[in-house]
Amino acid sequence: MTTPIARLQTLLETRMNAVNTMIATRMESENAPRIPEVTAHLIGAGGKRVRPLLTLAAAGLYDYDGEHDVKLAATVEFIHTATLLHDDVVDESDQRRGRPTANLLWDNQSSVLVGDYLFARSFQLMVEAGSLRVLDILANASAVIAEGEVLQLSVSRNLGTPEETYIRVIRGKTAALFAAATEVGALVAGASEDDITALRDYGDALGIAFQIADDLLDLTGEEIGKNTGDDLREGKLTMPVIRAIAVADAEERVFWERLIARGRYQEGDLEIALAIFNRRGILDSVRKTAFDYVAQAQACLKDLPDNAIRAEMHDLAEFVVARLR
Amino acid sequence: MTTPIARLQTLLETRMNAVNTMIATRMESENAPRIPEVTAHLIGAGGKRVRPLLTLAAAGLYDYDGEHDVKLAATVEFIHTATLLHDDVVDESDQRRGRPTANLLWDNQSSVLVGDYLFARSFQLMVEAGSLRVLDILANASAVIAEGEVLQLSVSRNLGTPEETYIRVIRGKTAALFAAATEVGALVAGASEDDITALRDYGDALGIAFQIADDLLDLTGEEIGKNTGDDLREGKLTMPVIRAIAVADAEERVFWERLIARGRYQEGDLEIALAIFNRRGILDSVRKTAFDYVAQAQACLKDLPDNAIRAEMHDLAEFVVARLR
Repeated sequence: MTTPIARLQTLLETRMNAVNTMIATRMESENAPRIPEVTAHLIGAGGKRVRPLLTLAAAGLYDYDGEHDVKLAATVEFIHTATLLHDDVVDESDQRRGRPTANLLWDNQSSVLVGDYLFARSFQLMVEAGSLRVLDILANASAVIAEGEVLQLSVSRNLGTPEETYIRVIRGKTAALFAAATEVGALVAGASEDDITALRDYGDALGIAFQIADDLLDLTGEEIGKNTGDDLREGKLTMPVIRAIAVADAEERVFWERLIARGRYQEGDLEIALAIFNRRGILDSVRKTAFDYVAQAQACLKDLPDNAIRAEMHDLAEFVVARLR
Repeated sequence: MTTPIARLQTLLETRMNAVNTMIATRMESENAPRIPEVTAHLIGAGGKRVRPLLTLAAAGLYDYDGEHDVKLAATVEFIHTATLLHDDVVDESDQRRGRPTANLLWDNQSSVLVGDYLFARSFQLMVEAGSLRVLDILANASAVIAEGEVLQLSVSRNLGTPEETYIRVIRGKTAALFAAATEVGALVAGASEDDITALRDYGDALGIAFQIADDLLDLTGEEIGKNTGDDLREGKLTMPVIRAIAVADAEERVFWERLIARGRYQEGDLEIALAIFNRRGILDSVRKTAFDYVAQAQACLKDLPDNAIRAEMHDLAEFVVARLR
């Protein structure tokens, strides 16, 4: 059974190949050979390249046949890769996509600096696309991403964090780049202002659904190469945790205090957390919220050109959450 | 006795005040209050703001009276501050400008992410300046800075590193931003292509002289709030060390092997290194090289408009190295 991602990759195959070639070329560095080593480790690990695919899809909806979508798709993937490198330093992670992280294989220094290099490279690529409006969108997205990450850091371990703050965090760290990816794709393809807005909103809702699903997978799934329970071990406030804290009885509260507020993770805590989530019906309620965002994303597509790409973007929204079941 | 920096600050006072206001406004973050805290700690520590001053000076040479020079000067300072935040993580420093570093006061995470935020902010400011050529220059500078830092990391502890590689490293990590600062200043002020090139080359030579002087100050000076000997403790290959290794006898070689290659710093090593440098006349030879770059920077100014700003830029080149004596 093929997935909407695979089908979009087939529909946009020539352009996606051009993106891959551009990524390989632009991660080279004449002066510092360690840069492509570190980058290739991460990019070679074969993420699904959802973000560049979204840029190509948004442009492809309008049969765009210029070359800026390819540059912008590579830009978006570079920004994403740079944030992954920095995230692994921030989270002190040792595994990503089922492989050891760059900070473990090389060092934190390389992860920080190669991330900076990829940001700069992404920036050069955008400039080549030659549109100040595109630059404005991506500059704003970069600021919102960093704000989201800092916000996440500053509310970490705070049991009183409301769900609204969680949404603000993931809107920054995940949805902002999804939204920018679709928005710039539509923009370079010459879509109408209404369509550009609709595609930006699609990316935003899709990104939020995607991140909620990712947080659920950290609890229940191993198929994406994550260490299950990483978020709990790091005391991260995800939607299930925030909802569980809101309804906790005295005994559960003691558990969350130790695990999240004081960061004292113990063997077996993932199982205790899952038991609480199941008893309280929390995983179902979080899945339902994720599907609300899926519906919101899909609604954004209704007035866009009705073609094969739109159909796959519709299914993609469901797919990012359906992988949960 | 006033310095050329103080005199340039007086000549460009109104504009420099506008830069300071813009920096204070743009480091705010509605979503993440930790961002201005961390930034203010560093920016408030009162560096001399040489880089934004260079942008204002380059534009001021041509009596520029628009507002883009102020935006670009703030951009340049944000890029510089972002690299300082990341450098302190990479170098594991605990002191900068005589105060504890941000990574010590908060954590490495905050330094990485607030640095990313400042990069993104700088990028927004450049977009506002509205010139793709300016964006191209600053995007390239950002890439060269990151390459310089990664190159430095990958040659660290390698005793065979030639002086040419050292120049390549500091051209990246320091001179690239100096050169971009003067180049974009000249560009927004509408200078001729020859003058833009001359001002870029001035910034490049000044940056190299500045960094060589900085490396010497790490050995011999405490007045800039550095821990003297930090570079030796970190096993960094600076110009004095590279020249000392090139002429080392067997006994000295054993010393450099332990200190630089194996990174086994011991109490008293700074004094041993200084004794070697003095015996071999190395500090004088390095000072001479720094002054060669000063002369090179000054030569770039000869065909530029002959006014008070040019006179101070001439003296500034000498001053960045003369602070050594």
